[in-house]
Amino acid sequence: MTDILRADGRTNDQLRPVTIERGWSDQAEGSALISFGRTKVLATASFTNGVPRWMAGKGKGWVTAEYSMLPRSTNSRMDRESVKGRIGGRTHEISRLIGRSLRAVVDMKALGENTIVIDCDVLQADGGTRTAAITGAYVALADALEWGREKKFIAQKAQPLTDSVAAVSVGIIAGVPMLDLAYTEDSRAETDMNVVVTGRGKFIEVQGTAEGAPFDRTELNSLLDLALAGAITLTDLQKTTLGR
Amino acid sequence: MTDILRADGRTNDQLRPVTIERGWSDQAEGSALISFGRTKVLATASFTNGVPRWMAGKGKGWVTAEYSMLPRSTNSRMDRESVKGRIGGRTHEISRLIGRSLRAVVDMKALGENTIVIDCDVLQADGGTRTAAITGAYVALADALEWGREKKFIAQKAQPLTDSVAAVSVGIIAGVPMLDLAYTEDSRAETDMNVVVTGRGKFIEVQGTAEGAPFDRTELNSLLDLALAGAITLTDLQKTTLGR
Amino acid sequence: MTDILRADGRTNDQLRPVTIERGWSDQAEGSALISFGRTKVLATASFTNGVPRWMAGKGKGWVTAEYSMLPRSTNSRMDRESVKGRIGGRTHEISRLIGRSLRAVVDMKALGENTIVIDCDVLQADGGTRTAAITGAYVALADALEWGREKKFIAQKAQPLTDSVAAVSVGIIAGVPMLDLAYTEDSRAETDMNVVVTGRGKFIEVQGTAEGAPFDRTELNSLLDLALAGAITLTDLQKTTLGR
Amino acid sequence: MTDILRADGRTNDQLRPVTIERGWSDQAEGSALISFGRTKVLATASFTNGVPRWMAGKGKGWVTAEYSMLPRSTNSRMDRESVKGRIGGRTHEISRLIGRSLRAVVDMKALGENTIVIDCDVLQADGGTRTAAITGAYVALADALEWGREKKFIAQKAQPLTDSVAAVSVGIIAGVPMLDLAYTEDSRAETDMNVVVTGRGKFIEVQGTAEGAPFDRTELNSLLDLALAGAITLTDLQKTTLGR
Amino acid sequence: MTDILRADGRTNDQLRPVTIERGWSDQAEGSALISFGRTKVLATASFTNGVPRWMAGKGKGWVTAEYSMLPRSTNSRMDRESVKGRIGGRTHEISRLIGRSLRAVVDMKALGENTIVIDCDVLQADGGTRTAAITGAYVALADALEWGREKKFIAQKAQPLTDSVAAVSVGIIAGVPMLDLAYTEDSRAETDMNVVVTGRGKFIEVQGTAEGAPFDRTELNSLLDLALAGAITLTDLQKTTLGR
Amino acid sequence: MTDILRADGRTNDQLRPVTIERGWSDQAEGSALISFGRTKVLATASFTNGVPRWMAGKGKGWVTAEYSMLPRSTNSRMDRESVKGRIGGRTHEISRLIGRSLRAVVDMKALGENTIVIDCDVLQADGGTRTAAITGAYVALADALEWGREKKFIAQKAQPLTDSVAAVSVGIIAGVPMLDLAYTEDSRAETDMNVVVTGRGKFIEVQGTAEGAPFDRTELNSLLDLALAGAITLTDLQKTTLGR
Repeated sequence: MTDILRADGRTNDQLRPVTIERGWSDQAEGSALISFGRTKVLATASFTNGVPRWMAGKGKGWVTAEYSMLPRSTNSRMDRESVKGRIGGRTHEISRLIGRSLRAVVDMKALGENTIVIDCDVLQADGGTRTAAITGAYVALADALEWGREKKFIAQKAQPLTDSVAAVSVGIIAGVPMLDLAYTEDSRAETDMNVVVTGRGKFIEVQGTAEGAPFDRTELNSLLDLALAGAITLTDLQKTTLGR
Repeated sequence: MTDILRADGRTNDQLRPVTIERGWSDQAEGSALISFGRTKVLATASFTNGVPRWMAGKGKGWVTAEYSMLPRSTNSRMDRESVKGRIGGRTHEISRLIGRSLRAVVDMKALGENTIVIDCDVLQADGGTRTAAITGAYVALADALEWGREKKFIAQKAQPLTDSVAAVSVGIIAGVPMLDLAYTEDSRAETDMNVVVTGRGKFIEVQGTAEGAPFDRTELNSLLDLALAGAITLTDLQKTTLGR
Repeated sequence: MTDILRADGRTNDQLRPVTIERGWSDQAEGSALISFGRTKVLATASFTNGVPRWMAGKGKGWVTAEYSMLPRSTNSRMDRESVKGRIGGRTHEISRLIGRSLRAVVDMKALGENTIVIDCDVLQADGGTRTAAITGAYVALADALEWGREKKFIAQKAQPLTDSVAAVSVGIIAGVPMLDLAYTEDSRAETDMNVVVTGRGKFIEVQGTAEGAPFDRTELNSLLDLALAGAITLTDLQKTTLGR
Repeated sequence: MTDILRADGRTNDQLRPVTIERGWSDQAEGSALISFGRTKVLATASFTNGVPRWMAGKGKGWVTAEYSMLPRSTNSRMDRESVKGRIGGRTHEISRLIGRSLRAVVDMKALGENTIVIDCDVLQADGGTRTAAITGAYVALADALEWGREKKFIAQKAQPLTDSVAAVSVGIIAGVPMLDLAYTEDSRAETDMNVVVTGRGKFIEVQGTAEGAPFDRTELNSLLDLALAGAITLTDLQKTTLGR
Repeated sequence: MTDILRADGRTNDQLRPVTIERGWSDQAEGSALISFGRTKVLATASFTNGVPRWMAGKGKGWVTAEYSMLPRSTNSRMDRESVKGRIGGRTHEISRLIGRSLRAVVDMKALGENTIVIDCDVLQADGGTRTAAITGAYVALADALEWGREKKFIAQKAQPLTDSVAAVSVGIIAGVPMLDLAYTEDSRAETDMNVVVTGRGKFIEVQGTAEGAPFDRTELNSLLDLALAGAITLTDLQKTTLGR
Repeated sequence: MTDILRADGRTNDQLRPVTIERGWSDQAEGSALISFGRTKVLATASFTNGVPRWMAGKGKGWVTAEYSMLPRSTNSRMDRESVKGRIGGRTHEISRLIGRSLRAVVDMKALGENTIVIDCDVLQADGGTRTAAITGAYVALADALEWGREKKFIAQKAQPLTDSVAAVSVGIIAGVPMLDLAYTEDSRAETDMNVVVTGRGKFIEVQGTAEGAPFDRTELNSLLDLALAGAITLTDLQKTTLGR
């Protein structure tokens, strides 16, 4: 793997500057405004005591997520999905991914009959919005769980969080594997992969897609190496942010 | 009119702290993040050269607006309108109000065959979101027009802006007229009024609604006095922000 | 204010011929077919004993309204909102206005746990449809309340109606304030205002919009003078119609 | 077939009182307010010069129809289809029936490249709304065609109408065939049939449905006899109304 | 009536080859894949113990049906109704026809508080899809009822089926009445009729439509003769298929 | 990896019986009915000469896909998405996956300005519907391309297919990696992975999801080994089916 200079001067295995503003919202039980370079996502976690009727009486909670982009978060304006009257496939796909990723680190029995809805709204988009969303949403989720414990909706001894979770994109550009693609990189990548990793370094999701040319096993392994290394940095930042 | 101490210590004729962060977005041709106290609205202005086909060939432009609230901008989470598949009446009403208010200070012939779409997304809500949206949107609009001029989509001598525009809410609480209601004030107001005023002090919109008790002409006049005074402050801030 | 001859020969402070056909419908608990000149609106009031589940047990009732135009009520045919699959912003806005206006004269505790749905369907449109709708809907509402009392759904001593309500449009055309605009007048008005007034002469709604040029306080006052005078005539007609 | 006294005193082969108010609308090119007893339908015909793009250049016109019921046209209020965001099966079915019935008497070549949209809005419903709609719509259509001829959108020698069309319902109640069912009759009919007939006495549509018990060929024949006789009366009224 | 040779060599009173594959689905309580020539419809019957809440407690069941076409069942691809977000009029109309036809042979009291949903999905279309659907759906329904009896959701002595039901299309082409129209025949028929007949030879539905020229009573009678004869063949095949 | 006996007696690295019925549809330009055990998917490929307007003039074609399940393809009936009026997230996700997978083996320049729409309708579902859909869709696509070449819509020398594509699911159940999961296996898998592979053995998509417990790199590698082996069998069957 040769190091080439990227548009923003990063090395191939380098993340963009990542910042997390914890507790950005005065309204939500947990929230974080996360930036991966120019990509900015506001994640809020709304805690409700109780579960939908069809889940009641099983002693288990539920965590779900919705993702959306502001119409002018992108370089040219997109129509609002509310105005179109329907949610697009990409939005559905990412909302489901975020929900699965967070549920993978929550013990639903320990959560008890409580519901947490995660909203990830992209205020500005420059590639990697879904990975930023997952990484920020974990911080919002952790704070919402803490709020639920303080309000005694969650038992004092219960440990709903089984691990932390972070996500990062990787891709192959001109044959070279790279970490954390910005939009201009992503749009010319031959292969694009989103990897969701726990704090202990295990996989929750591996989603690799050949956009240009099929990829082989060696390339897959290089991408996973980059992703796992990047995830460690994000996990550390989450810990620092949460003061743990 | 007796002065009573308001929850946040303001006098009856006092605005909440107002801040405007011009150019918040890297993507839009004009943008502003405006705060009226805890209310935060991101306004972006998207400039497109050309007009929809049905308007073409008349030498005139078009300005339109869309308003939306993030699901957890409010104290309890609201369902997304994109998920519900339809836009609610309140959203429609406010989008139309913002659009009319901005069009009232734009000379469509001077704009030429260009389209500007204003998006006002409420990131956090604490009353007065529509008035904050209009006030911030004017700043985004002014910058988008300047961008259009630099790109030569607007003629150098053309003056598309005929005036500035700002908006503020007023209301009667326990019989006392007050300026710029926060959410807790708004929800117990007998009468609620939104007033949209030009930089020269004329009215673009006066929308007064008796929520609790009908109001008489004396009360109407007191409310208009408060609103006009508040609008002067907002107009001054807009000028300062735009460096004019 | 100079008197100019209007297209239909009226003076500036003159309403169009207004007629109210009470009890037009054999089906509804209250109904009225109201005409403001060529504008014809059928208002029906549907009385249901009980309230939606989320309101039950509070001893209060609810009044709501829906407005719609027949596709060929207007000069050129409009697509049906049912066919488009979504309700437009103007329809939403007017439905909400009618609902608020009627609720402002109803004591919800005196109504008890009963629901009244007002439907205002424009059979023919020539300006002023929302003001005709409110004025006619009051008559339908009054009869539906009487029906509820006869059926003993409303307590005999209860007085759900606290006042009557009527509405009228005013506007400035070529600099001259005028009462009750017909469509051709409305479409060239610089300022257009809808005013909802109680039988006792207080305001429920004041909605003034600068369509062409911003308006000042003197103009606002002239418009309110005209509207209050017009509302007295409408209130008298309502009383006569209801035999009170 | 024994004669039994019907709720409103009619004999089995008797229509309800039918009235047609031609030219009810000031806006539409053709219109009629038709009553079959308490059933009242407003039919308007909107004439547009030209056809949709996909039909252009073939020298042929198009006639289509939409049917709808006001929410309180019925004994208990129905939700609006515009509010529900979708059109129900019954509405679709009747709109299609009306369109087919009218097209069956129009020579599309003689109509030329013109479009006519028929709107049938039920203001009050008491059974037989679809048959009243077709019968009234023919009058509106005839006048709209006359308007098109006067405006020279239709060639002077062209005869777009090849015949007239009327419709009536018949049904079997307690084993007895009856003409023109009112709502209370319709709801307890074993078999319900709608028959659309040309002025020359031929069938355009025969739609018989066993609601309660299957019907045999003898019963079918009795129903067709009643329908054809009723259609003659309706055809005569149409002629008188149109002054032909 | 002269015999002409049809495109596929059939005589005017001849059905296409009809086959019924009973129990095609491993999942449904009853199912049949029926072919009328190249037309192939998969009918499944889903049995649920219980009825919707609004029907509960009356000791009666419910049977309903949904019809749909695969997008490429036809010669040129149609857009999916799920993608368009709305169901078309034709789909609604046919779903309702199938439901009514099946309910006409079910004794809802004998069915008890059970619900059967019939799905008729057209895998390949070549005319007569609605008649094939009804004919096949009866087989699926009969098996689902048998399943319900075995599971003891239906009382052992109860006889929910009062008769069998089959359907066939007839039409007039170039003045000649013909049985079971294929697509190319159907598209040039002057009159098209769908007839739903019980095993005992009575009518459930007669839906005749003049597509080209109105039809008279003689033609109607010829069409009914053809349909009744065709229905006997279909009824026999249903009996054989069900082993009765 | 220990071999355990699976419910249907397969070994861990064994596919279910796979059959492909090529040319199932008389209507589509290419089609295949594929079975993976009890899972049955009908894939059709609709070839249209020309591309959507926004793509025209670039000399490139387009391939897209839609996936849907019949309501009773599953063990309990699901509501139709057309009836619900919206497409669910899972459907969107799979439609997009199929489209991407097929586009990865098509040279859009060689295809020329032609559009191919792939429809994958699940007639019966027992796990692995998306992988069966992709595998069958390739056969339909290959035939549609051949049809386009015969019709001279595709240049004789052009080679639009750059490779073949097949897909298979793998998962970890009770700690053991297994190939081609049936529904009952899939629903208790800790990790579930769908792998899309070219005929040359390269990856197009790798989508691994931890449903129960996060997975490590060793497990990922075992799953990929199984998937690549399974894909070779499917590729061979595709070749045989297509007679290549």
